[in-house]
Amino acid sequence: MVTNKNCVLRLSRYKNALHRFKSLGFFKIFSSYLADAVGVTSAQVRKDFSLFNIMGNKRGGYVIEQLIEKLNDILGKNEVQQVVLVGAGNLGSALLKYKNFEKEGIKVEAAFDIDPAKQNSKMGVEVLPLERLVPFIKDHGIRIAILCVPDIAAQQTFDLMCKAGIKGVLNFSPIELKVTDGCIVTNVNLAVELENMIYFVNAQDKAGQAALRDNEEGISAIS
Amino acid sequence: MVTNKNCVLRLSRYKNALHRFKSLGFFKIFSSYLADAVGVTSAQVRKDFSLFNIMGNKRGGYVIEQLIEKLNDILGKNEVQQVVLVGAGNLGSALLKYKNFEKEGIKVEAAFDIDPAKQNSKMGVEVLPLERLVPFIKDHGIRIAILCVPDIAAQQTFDLMCKAGIKGVLNFSPIELKVTDGCIVTNVNLAVELENMIYFVNAQDKAGQAALRDNEEGISAIS
Repeated sequence: MVTNKNCVLRLSRYKNALHRFKSLGFFKIFSSYLADAVGVTSAQVRKDFSLFNIMGNKRGGYVIEQLIEKLNDILGKNEVQQVVLVGAGNLGSALLKYKNFEKEGIKVEAAFDIDPAKQNSKMGVEVLPLERLVPFIKDHGIRIAILCVPDIAAQQTFDLMCKAGIKGVLNFSPIELKVTDGCIVTNVNLAVELENMIYFVNAQDKAGQAALRDNEEGISAIS
Repeated sequence: MVTNKNCVLRLSRYKNALHRFKSLGFFKIFSSYLADAVGVTSAQVRKDFSLFNIMGNKRGGYVIEQLIEKLNDILGKNEVQQVVLVGAGNLGSALLKYKNFEKEGIKVEAAFDIDPAKQNSKMGVEVLPLERLVPFIKDHGIRIAILCVPDIAAQQTFDLMCKAGIKGVLNFSPIELKVTDGCIVTNVNLAVELENMIYFVNAQDKAGQAALRDNEEGISAIS
């Protein structure tokens, strides 16, 4: 069992790149092409694949169709993944309309919200009262949830879901959930992502200015 | 200049935790409290802080107000960060209403879309035609952009923005952008995040079943 998160993330990126190659009419592919498309070295591609016992052919490369099939199998994508979404506010309702989930074999079975005004609205997916969350998870054997409730309600809703049988949560609430029973939480904090990018943009700016200054000093020392 | 992405991400998480401690009435804080709140070791907290020359006090810990001020300074948050958003579809328009950006000092100055029906709609932020993107970025000296266009338009829009002066992009399009001129790209691919979580939930399940099987075999071997 491979438990390196970055490696598994790369598998998804390989798979997406393979779909693009396939749509361009490719039948086979070399690791170097795939590496270029994803922005890693071809040694990395081969190393990742060998971890999952995926072997290529030195002369012909990988057969794209077979490779996609294998990656889908590893990523659990050869069956539809049922998820529930809790909190149908702005972000939640946008996610209900997010077409890439469906493309990737992820089906939001139902959404839940405490606000009666949001229930039964036109979201493409049924929005049910929060009281029905626990029985729904149990009845449908759902293991994955998307959490989009305000931060004040996040921990309580999370605890509820875990007790009902949820094993993995994509958390959009900007708080650190206290995880007790081995549920896997992936935090998506968009403000934090932006904040970090701003740090690196500023860092690059400062590095650029310092290089420029050093260069000028160099010139004045020579002249 | 610290360029470790995970370290910078932790600074954001420390800052968010500090705000929570502050709102609970705390004045000073020990690294161990902060570590617990964020889910790392206190050695990690001290190591991260020492990288940025932040020193605590063995007896009293850190003064929360000062620490927040320093972290904000490092993260470039003591000034409002102006960003533009391109692509006001479902996800884009949800992000325009996303309250956590404003809370974090991030201001979406304008949004842009190719669809006249989306322009001048009630989004709280002005939605302008795409032709105005380049002059707007130049006139306002914007360096950060949020990209929410369909994948087919993503690379072209990205190239346009970079030429206009954008240095950092939060990319929601499910493609790998080809970066040529040192622009920093952070990809947020929600389907990939979900896909990965599903992999780890399945992995945990299999590990649990294997442990159970081993255990049963153990029992039958004994009995």
